[in-house]
Amino acid sequence: MEPWVDGLPAHAVGLADRGLAYGDGVFETVRVSAGQARLLGRHLQRLGEATRRLALPLDLALVEAELTRYAQAMGEGVLKLIITRGDGLRGYAASPEARCRRILQASPLPAYPEGHARDGVALFPCQTRLAIQPALAGLKHLNRLEQVLARAEWQGREEAEGLMRDTEGRVVEGVFSNLFLVNGQRLRTASLGRCGVAGTLRAELLAQAPGQGLVAEVADLAWADLASADEVFVCNSVYGIWPVIACSDLVWPVGAVTRTLQRLVRELLDT
Amino acid sequence: MEPWVDGLPAHAVGLADRGLAYGDGVFETVRVSAGQARLLGRHLQRLGEATRRLALPLDLALVEAELTRYAQAMGEGVLKLIITRGDGLRGYAASPEARCRRILQASPLPAYPEGHARDGVALFPCQTRLAIQPALAGLKHLNRLEQVLARAEWQGREEAEGLMRDTEGRVVEGVFSNLFLVNGQRLRTASLGRCGVAGTLRAELLAQAPGQGLVAEVADLAWADLASADEVFVCNSVYGIWPVIACSDLVWPVGAVTRTLQRLVRELLDT
Repeated sequence: MEPWVDGLPAHAVGLADRGLAYGDGVFETVRVSAGQARLLGRHLQRLGEATRRLALPLDLALVEAELTRYAQAMGEGVLKLIITRGDGLRGYAASPEARCRRILQASPLPAYPEGHARDGVALFPCQTRLAIQPALAGLKHLNRLEQVLARAEWQGREEAEGLMRDTEGRVVEGVFSNLFLVNGQRLRTASLGRCGVAGTLRAELLAQAPGQGLVAEVADLAWADLASADEVFVCNSVYGIWPVIACSDLVWPVGAVTRTLQRLVRELLDT
Repeated sequence: MEPWVDGLPAHAVGLADRGLAYGDGVFETVRVSAGQARLLGRHLQRLGEATRRLALPLDLALVEAELTRYAQAMGEGVLKLIITRGDGLRGYAASPEARCRRILQASPLPAYPEGHARDGVALFPCQTRLAIQPALAGLKHLNRLEQVLARAEWQGREEAEGLMRDTEGRVVEGVFSNLFLVNGQRLRTASLGRCGVAGTLRAELLAQAPGQGLVAEVADLAWADLASADEVFVCNSVYGIWPVIACSDLVWPVGAVTRTLQRLVRELLDT
């Protein structure tokens, strides 16, 4: 399926685009199944928050309509939406006339080994730290050099994801996933008020946890919390949930809570 | 003058570019006078450091040749060079075959009021803070949302620049300039090991200070240092030096050291 730029088939953006110049924008990576953009409400919610916090002049209703139409045409795969602040003047000041640019691109589902979801994955403990920046925390913005550096730290297939801490040592998330710890019936994930990306599946799991008999908590997490977890998993809206079985010298079993949530998530993303 | 992409006239980049996707790259803003790219060695030096620290597969000799040719053709103005990590796969991992993309764009010299250099400017004290990220500090990378947010904090023409502090309160730089404090014959500018952009003119001034009878120091700066400075100025490689005469409730005169350095810089940039 051809990409769309501002609603029309196109394969390029002009050099004046502020996404290119400054990473001035946000993106969403949306799972499409059976012609539907999955977790669409959550993606729109996060776009809405970005629109407010970054003062992006974005027509959310138009984005919703385009995502829906594009997903129908795609049928199956991953829909990447990039929103930029449109064309720029020279310099950081945005033109008062700027309108956001909308870029939609389709790609096939990534070919992750089946074993990732079934048997679990190891996490590479990244040395690259997440900077503490409350003004940007939680948003899936286009300033992603930290993730680029972190992802470049390991090449092999032994680890499927990396574990990222902030510059003060807190355990935060994966490079392209959120992280959950399970202790008994308690589900914990890092608070993302200082750094990190508030994933749509993370939000959905926090909302659905009570219905599964789980107590969901958002908290600051330390390495010791990781060490004392009964189960650990990573998640995102494309692959769903992967159990985590190892990181550095820590190991965990694939547990019952993780399996229950995997079943739930398959329904949300796949069927 | 038409922009060049990878050495050829072009006005767009493909949607797979990692500069657009992640801000995965760096840029340089080069003053061109009399057909020459000014401070070229300093710009190349910073590109070289970015190449090493971000592992960008960039041919620096090719960039030097292009900058030189493009500047000759331009004659006068501002040359913006964007380097991205080229086209991406889906995801943060860079393709081992990726080659950097080189984007050159010409624009006229910005029409700043003459009074800025002559009478000095006021700085707006920005609330947006610079996050502490040693892995990226000093580089002029494409992740510039902090500057976008800071620049959006004021609209009027009363302040020509903003003052940025880091998240721990240190005084660091302007939104698009470096900052210098003068006390007697001592010239001080913020150390940029935690955050900030190491400007090419900043580097040149630090190198030339001894020749002007000045002692140059790179140090952590606090608000109290700003308050006790005899003279303050901001600088970048396009406009040169602007005396700073006010910020918040602080005021400074336009002093003799600033005037001396302005004369020096005019020679470097204009003649």
